[in-house]
Amino acid sequence: MAPREFKVTAKVRYSETDQMGVVYYANYLVWFELGRSSVLDQLGYPYDKLEEHGFILPAVHAEVFYRASAHYNEEIEIASWVSELRSVSVSFAHRIVRIGDRRLLAEGSTKHAVLSQDRKIIRLPEYLVKALAGTMADV
Amino acid sequence: MAPREFKVTAKVRYSETDQMGVVYYANYLVWFELGRSSVLDQLGYPYDKLEEHGFILPAVHAEVFYRASAHYNEEIEIASWVSELRSVSVSFAHRIVRIGDRRLLAEGSTKHAVLSQDRKIIRLPEYLVKALAGTMADV
Amino acid sequence: MAPREFKVTAKVRYSETDQMGVVYYANYLVWFELGRSSVLDQLGYPYDKLEEHGFILPAVHAEVFYRASAHYNEEIEIASWVSELRSVSVSFAHRIVRIGDRRLLAEGSTKHAVLSQDRKIIRLPEYLVKALAGTMADV
Amino acid sequence: MAPREFKVTAKVRYSETDQMGVVYYANYLVWFELGRSSVLDQLGYPYDKLEEHGFILPAVHAEVFYRASAHYNEEIEIASWVSELRSVSVSFAHRIVRIGDRRLLAEGSTKHAVLSQDRKIIRLPEYLVKALAGTMADV
Repeated sequence: MAPREFKVTAKVRYSETDQMGVVYYANYLVWFELGRSSVLDQLGYPYDKLEEHGFILPAVHAEVFYRASAHYNEEIEIASWVSELRSVSVSFAHRIVRIGDRRLLAEGSTKHAVLSQDRKIIRLPEYLVKALAGTMADV
Repeated sequence: MAPREFKVTAKVRYSETDQMGVVYYANYLVWFELGRSSVLDQLGYPYDKLEEHGFILPAVHAEVFYRASAHYNEEIEIASWVSELRSVSVSFAHRIVRIGDRRLLAEGSTKHAVLSQDRKIIRLPEYLVKALAGTMADV
Repeated sequence: MAPREFKVTAKVRYSETDQMGVVYYANYLVWFELGRSSVLDQLGYPYDKLEEHGFILPAVHAEVFYRASAHYNEEIEIASWVSELRSVSVSFAHRIVRIGDRRLLAEGSTKHAVLSQDRKIIRLPEYLVKALAGTMADV
Repeated sequence: MAPREFKVTAKVRYSETDQMGVVYYANYLVWFELGRSSVLDQLGYPYDKLEEHGFILPAVHAEVFYRASAHYNEEIEIASWVSELRSVSVSFAHRIVRIGDRRLLAEGSTKHAVLSQDRKIIRLPEYLVKALAGTMADV
């Protein structure tokens, strides 16, 4: 079974373009962030609440495959899902398409450590492990 | 007498351009920040130390006059000086030129409140008031 | 009579925050851009089409008054209106509020020259002058 | 033999931090760009000249391993080298260290297609192939 996908849309900002006339490559990591932020929002555990509860999820790895260019004012859809869940890390996979023609723009993943506010490795709270695991295929 | 000017240089990043082929307008506020950051560094009171000592200087006003466009890979010089100093606020003025032809690219100012980490209005520490005042003309 | 206001909403991105725990001050100019981009979209003359037709509207002046801090994941509303219209320039005013408590976060304006793609001063096309003028109070 | 490494330094900007108090993860791709931009500058073929000659090098893949956090005002060193050279693509590897304690902050790579301004796949000009190849170990 496939994992549950979460979607969020955005409109390309002028600030996101560069002189090549397309979206600057680092901004896809910003869009991946919108995606995983939306996963947590939709699960009812927004990331700001996690931070208030003492958890931070800094990226330890990120990878992007750029498939086609995005342009100013285009509508995009970011699909995200939990791709790996361990006691001290969580990974998200992302696929970004242009809504107008369903063209795949980019895909990739980010992996996050789970740390306390004082930067110690800790385990995700049980309620979040459960919620995240519930979105995955083999659960 | 003129106030003491502090200078810092930078090279235009590709990420700072937009599809107009020039530097995106919001990035001039980033460059203004480099300027005032450099003022504090050169005075021996770097902003990170100020924050460690419990002071934050959030912007309450910013203004930019755009005079000419900056382009990728150009060297720029940011000149900054303290333009106003009050017990609970400090203002910096900035002038940015392209080094290659000394063309004025932008000028403007930012005004900052002085707050404690818990967002209460406080006074700048006396040593910093003295250092900043010492850079101004009529002191 | 008041000018016609155009509104667009956004959700604060993690990338937009800084270590002060609030939105970095330059990002308000990005949000102002979302506002004026939305004005043109809603009038039926999106800015990307203007550029395709040979017009660019680079900023010549920008000003922001920061009233309160925005935080990650908050919903904001950007209200924008045409505040001045001349044959070779156009100005937009902006007001940004946090949707949750209607708190005013920032207000300000941007003024734009009208240039051809080869950076000559030109006049706005008549259809756009008419559309923009139609949004203003005394027209 | 090891490939020739090219180095460039930078100082962490306040704008590059996020509310976690460290540099936002997408900015490492901006720093990678500074690195490869510097490679081309030091070889005498700055990227802006390449674009003027009709070549663009959009990213087709990017990967970052985050090893430690960077903080505001820290000096960093970006080391970059050509890691793969094909007729229609070029890859750069990057290693970023904090200068103060030589701590490794991040490493990774970016791969770039070679396109004409009208987005057709083309070959790198011979002079650039030669210059890039000359920096690699087995040449």
